[in-house]
Amino acid sequence: MDNQDRYERGWARLKEIDPEAGPELIERLKDIAPDFARYIIEFPFGTIYTRPGLDWKSRELAVIAALTALGTAVPQLKEHIHRGLRAGWTRQEIVEVIMQMAVYAGVPAALNAISAAKDVFKEHDESGES
Amino acid sequence: MDNQDRYERGWARLKEIDPEAGPELIERLKDIAPDFARYIIEFPFGTIYTRPGLDWKSRELAVIAALTALGTAVPQLKEHIHRGLRAGWTRQEIVEVIMQMAVYAGVPAALNAISAAKDVFKEHDESGES
Amino acid sequence: MDNQDRYERGWARLKEIDPEAGPELIERLKDIAPDFARYIIEFPFGTIYTRPGLDWKSRELAVIAALTALGTAVPQLKEHIHRGLRAGWTRQEIVEVIMQMAVYAGVPAALNAISAAKDVFKEHDESGES
Amino acid sequence: MDNQDRYERGWARLKEIDPEAGPELIERLKDIAPDFARYIIEFPFGTIYTRPGLDWKSRELAVIAALTALGTAVPQLKEHIHRGLRAGWTRQEIVEVIMQMAVYAGVPAALNAISAAKDVFKEHDESGES
Amino acid sequence: MDNQDRYERGWARLKEIDPEAGPELIERLKDIAPDFARYIIEFPFGTIYTRPGLDWKSRELAVIAALTALGTAVPQLKEHIHRGLRAGWTRQEIVEVIMQMAVYAGVPAALNAISAAKDVFKEHDESGES
Amino acid sequence: MDNQDRYERGWARLKEIDPEAGPELIERLKDIAPDFARYIIEFPFGTIYTRPGLDWKSRELAVIAALTALGTAVPQLKEHIHRGLRAGWTRQEIVEVIMQMAVYAGVPAALNAISAAKDVFKEHDESGES
Repeated sequence: MDNQDRYERGWARLKEIDPEAGPELIERLKDIAPDFARYIIEFPFGTIYTRPGLDWKSRELAVIAALTALGTAVPQLKEHIHRGLRAGWTRQEIVEVIMQMAVYAGVPAALNAISAAKDVFKEHDESGES
Repeated sequence: MDNQDRYERGWARLKEIDPEAGPELIERLKDIAPDFARYIIEFPFGTIYTRPGLDWKSRELAVIAALTALGTAVPQLKEHIHRGLRAGWTRQEIVEVIMQMAVYAGVPAALNAISAAKDVFKEHDESGES
Repeated sequence: MDNQDRYERGWARLKEIDPEAGPELIERLKDIAPDFARYIIEFPFGTIYTRPGLDWKSRELAVIAALTALGTAVPQLKEHIHRGLRAGWTRQEIVEVIMQMAVYAGVPAALNAISAAKDVFKEHDESGES
Repeated sequence: MDNQDRYERGWARLKEIDPEAGPELIERLKDIAPDFARYIIEFPFGTIYTRPGLDWKSRELAVIAALTALGTAVPQLKEHIHRGLRAGWTRQEIVEVIMQMAVYAGVPAALNAISAAKDVFKEHDESGES
Repeated sequence: MDNQDRYERGWARLKEIDPEAGPELIERLKDIAPDFARYIIEFPFGTIYTRPGLDWKSRELAVIAALTALGTAVPQLKEHIHRGLRAGWTRQEIVEVIMQMAVYAGVPAALNAISAAKDVFKEHDESGES
Repeated sequence: MDNQDRYERGWARLKEIDPEAGPELIERLKDIAPDFARYIIEFPFGTIYTRPGLDWKSRELAVIAALTALGTAVPQLKEHIHRGLRAGWTRQEIVEVIMQMAVYAGVPAALNAISAAKDVFKEHDESGES
């Protein structure tokens, strides 16, 4: 498999996961770091998210937990809450895992992630998504 | 439900999750912070881990992801890798989620969590656990 | 003591600490995570902040220091600067502990916490609080 | 050398590094923590940034890398991207080191730092700086 | 006041706070970074810890809280638990503030700081200190 | 260029940077996460460290700064201090950048990185490296 394949496989995978994310990523980085957009498509999406060893739904839960705990990446946390809903988690399940993170990263980390979730849920309400 | 109930419910829940963990926690904290042991049993175990909104197996994956990303709690990461195996995740699935965290928290965080997983898997080999 | 007692004790304690915080917390979480609001009242306020082993004023200083150092929870840092003033710390003492954190968490962490303190002090000026 | 000398040496050094930063720092802290402004001029600028053991240009790259990885100090990251350009790094070199941090602190940390860099580059475009 | 004064004032202050720490710091850094030892004496001790705006005892509590929350500096946390005891905090008060940090930085951070405290208390038992 | 090329290019690059690191990485991960070893060779080494936009020496300084600031990856910090020496930085320059990080991430982060540097310098003394 050559790198073009990996890029195309990553692009296809990201399109399944979040159809708007690929074009947005390319648009956002095209003037400043176009290679970085390509690497993100090749590596996380063409490599990690295409691995069969763990299903996508579980992977999204893991990312929501990790970004809640880190507390330094709110835009990406929102993106993954959106993807978690797309992957089949209910709103309540996402709130459950955020609440659970209060145990491991403290109450403020969980409260701030709940604010992020509220924003995403509101966008879904407005766009008619689940 | 009174607090004694919550403690007993937490104790029973922790016993299901990890039979040795409760007595070890009490032993470790008994001379220095016995109330903290009680709170941990009441709050994470009597409250969060008894909630029906998300299954235990998913919760363990979330904790493994979060503690891998944080990188500041190796003893607790090992404990949750152990519990992840008990909850039904395979070794390969646990390694998958740790590898995935390289994307969100960097390669060193993932490499250090893999070292922790190796230690836990070796202990399981020696004790004959899965 | 039953859980209802713990909730009521926590509610009463939070009312002393910060009269507006309890209703705000419930309002903020009522549609998304009402149980989390209840747990926060039961556990930090009904349990930790009612313990006699350390006075409230000292506890607020500790939280201001910790949230300054973490740098990931500005809304909660502001809340605790507000509570620190209510607990009897002067503005200058709060600024002192933030400055001290430059030694332990770096100059940017201290500068960003000073920005948070400026916002809180301005709100107090406008509302006529100390 | 007395402390007045150290302050004056730090002030002169900061003026070379970033002519607007000294007056802005003093203005920002004058009502709340004027001594902290003085310490920042004396210690980082009068002491660290005047040491001959490592050139200024290398020091700015190191700070950009560190603040990208930490992810908790966006205003200071922008300030140092600005100084990195002044020190002689090209925009592309700064983007390179930010991209590299994806390996050590994760993709979200790098993406958020690229957003910061875009803001700084736009300000430079508007003011006619390199 | 000249820099020699600041160094001497810092040395005297550190001697009051922790008589063994100054010589140990100089010994530890003498072959690798002797200027850094001097700066630590001049800046935290000659400047911050000699400021009258907040008493030493309160400052030690703040550092114990912050280092517990950060979770990345166990040797320094132990040093400040030792100094907290010297400053007049009881063992139980130190354990109280560590437990409280479970709310702000998670249970693992608090449990790991309790392990650090146990080590320091044991050293004090063996040396006959309070 | 296909993926095999990328792997080979990464392997060759890592061999230049640190001849023992590639075989060690493969050995360490071969039983638990062999694909992760391959990804690390393909992505950081076959992609990032082969980019012409920033020289290797500067990249190593950036990593030393970032890992000092994060404080969660001591084994990797040591590895990069070793590589920094190989890239042409003197011991004193490495100590300079670590000291500088005290400003951005606090004194404990810098002191702990200096301990790591001492260990690496001692290994170099024993093996006769610079």
